[in-house]
Amino acid sequence: MGERVLIALGGNAMTGPDGSASAEDQRTAVEEAMRHVRAILDAGHQVILTHGNGPQVGNLLLKNQLAAGVVPPVPLDWCGAQTQATIGTLILNALGGRTATVVTRTLVDAGDQGFQDPVKPIGRYFGEAEARTFEKLGQHWRRFDQGWRRVVASPEPLEILDADAVNTLMADGFTVVAAGGGGVPVVRRADGGLSGVEAVIDKDLAAAVLARAVHASVLIIATNVPNAVIGFGGPDPRPIGRISSGELRVLHAAGHFAGGSMGPKVEAALRFVADGGSRAAITSLAGITQAMAGNAGTRVER
Amino acid sequence: MGERVLIALGGNAMTGPDGSASAEDQRTAVEEAMRHVRAILDAGHQVILTHGNGPQVGNLLLKNQLAAGVVPPVPLDWCGAQTQATIGTLILNALGGRTATVVTRTLVDAGDQGFQDPVKPIGRYFGEAEARTFEKLGQHWRRFDQGWRRVVASPEPLEILDADAVNTLMADGFTVVAAGGGGVPVVRRADGGLSGVEAVIDKDLAAAVLARAVHASVLIIATNVPNAVIGFGGPDPRPIGRISSGELRVLHAAGHFAGGSMGPKVEAALRFVADGGSRAAITSLAGITQAMAGNAGTRVER
Repeated sequence: MGERVLIALGGNAMTGPDGSASAEDQRTAVEEAMRHVRAILDAGHQVILTHGNGPQVGNLLLKNQLAAGVVPPVPLDWCGAQTQATIGTLILNALGGRTATVVTRTLVDAGDQGFQDPVKPIGRYFGEAEARTFEKLGQHWRRFDQGWRRVVASPEPLEILDADAVNTLMADGFTVVAAGGGGVPVVRRADGGLSGVEAVIDKDLAAAVLARAVHASVLIIATNVPNAVIGFGGPDPRPIGRISSGELRVLHAAGHFAGGSMGPKVEAALRFVADGGSRAAITSLAGITQAMAGNAGTRVER
Repeated sequence: MGERVLIALGGNAMTGPDGSASAEDQRTAVEEAMRHVRAILDAGHQVILTHGNGPQVGNLLLKNQLAAGVVPPVPLDWCGAQTQATIGTLILNALGGRTATVVTRTLVDAGDQGFQDPVKPIGRYFGEAEARTFEKLGQHWRRFDQGWRRVVASPEPLEILDADAVNTLMADGFTVVAAGGGGVPVVRRADGGLSGVEAVIDKDLAAAVLARAVHASVLIIATNVPNAVIGFGGPDPRPIGRISSGELRVLHAAGHFAGGSMGPKVEAALRFVADGGSRAAITSLAGITQAMAGNAGTRVER
């Protein structure tokens, strides 16, 4: 009997080996990723897909900035939306069958601390003069060692607003692509309406929220390493295989997993099992079939 | 008893009064358009929405071109996909309720004459030097009186590939946004797989195909004039109200409706009723409620 599994694809599933994100690189990478996803479908499981979009949004922001004097720049949340459709279309073409891509919004809190004090750097480094120009458009920029970089809020994903549509499609047998890039961030206004907001939502944390909303029993986070590692980059790296959520939480709290990298993946896995998910795995794209069978990756059970 | 109606929104539903397409212009225009759509929903009808994207794609192409030396340009079909998600998100936020946006591909024939001899102009005018540069990237450019402009194929929409997902969502009570910009054009490869292709699909002709695929009984094409007109721009313009499809076909064949403007709208309306649709109307955004009631616009019945 198949299970319902949410697979969160990391950037390497959508970019070339060097991280570049030309159209051809993205198409090739998605086709390769879909071979692995197809194996899980063929094993009789039901799949929801979500994906990152960092390099793609980076390209869109850069175009925005280079063309700013001629074409009105679009807000950051629109860039995220754009990547849902382009990556979604690539997935539809590569996976075939009954697959659907749903444009997905994620509710965040307008009072999230990140909006007052944005710290998440996005896009490329620029010189101070350009940074000051963009600051006049209301953007926040900060000086780093390598230059000036835009910083934005990275608020907590509270609710996947379009999960209802995902559920309807899954109930009818569709494989669904949803919440790409963590979903398009929106806030609820004082009048009750919804408005887009310039922010970046962590795609793995959003995946954990989506996974519960669509009643997935398994969450697989596909990244560019086969396991989360204790002492990553140090003299005695120890890959983590099967681990209890209690143990993993202790390691996470002790700072073993880098913020902005493995940290949110571990956090997403822990939240998913704490919220009622059956099991979560963090592994490489090539490992997802084995992780689904319980034989590869860092595996956390409830 | 409500009817199932497909409403095709023209560019004026997504741009400022002067045709500009800044993010704020688009948001304001979509909010206004959704007030009219809401009235039709409130009358008990089920609605599928589709929309144009000309000015939005124009902006994306211009960014592509201005940034071409720094960021890899994305293909034209990706620009169309991008607008499905941005306009789709605006519609989701403005309309509320159970509304879903489906990323939608439209199948076209790789042998369509337009691919050999592209004639549909898109984007802005450039000088000859720039045009020649872009030609080296494989694009087609032509000299017009006002300068050089890119020309692309505008193939016939054969099938809305994601109509199945739209049907599933509608059966569960969703208002669905689909096939924006005519859908993302794809062709079937010799190996049976699907690939995106650089082309522009007429959104009204695609709307007629989608309307039949989702079993809509009514097609409303919302544009910037209240009626199709005989002798438009001449000394004796005569707005068309209720008309038989036979009469309208005769006027269409006689060249009364401009290609690239009212022509495809009339053609879409005629195809829809010929293919089994109950009635079609062409009217202004402000007229769609009255057109739905049979009291405004150019109305064609089977």
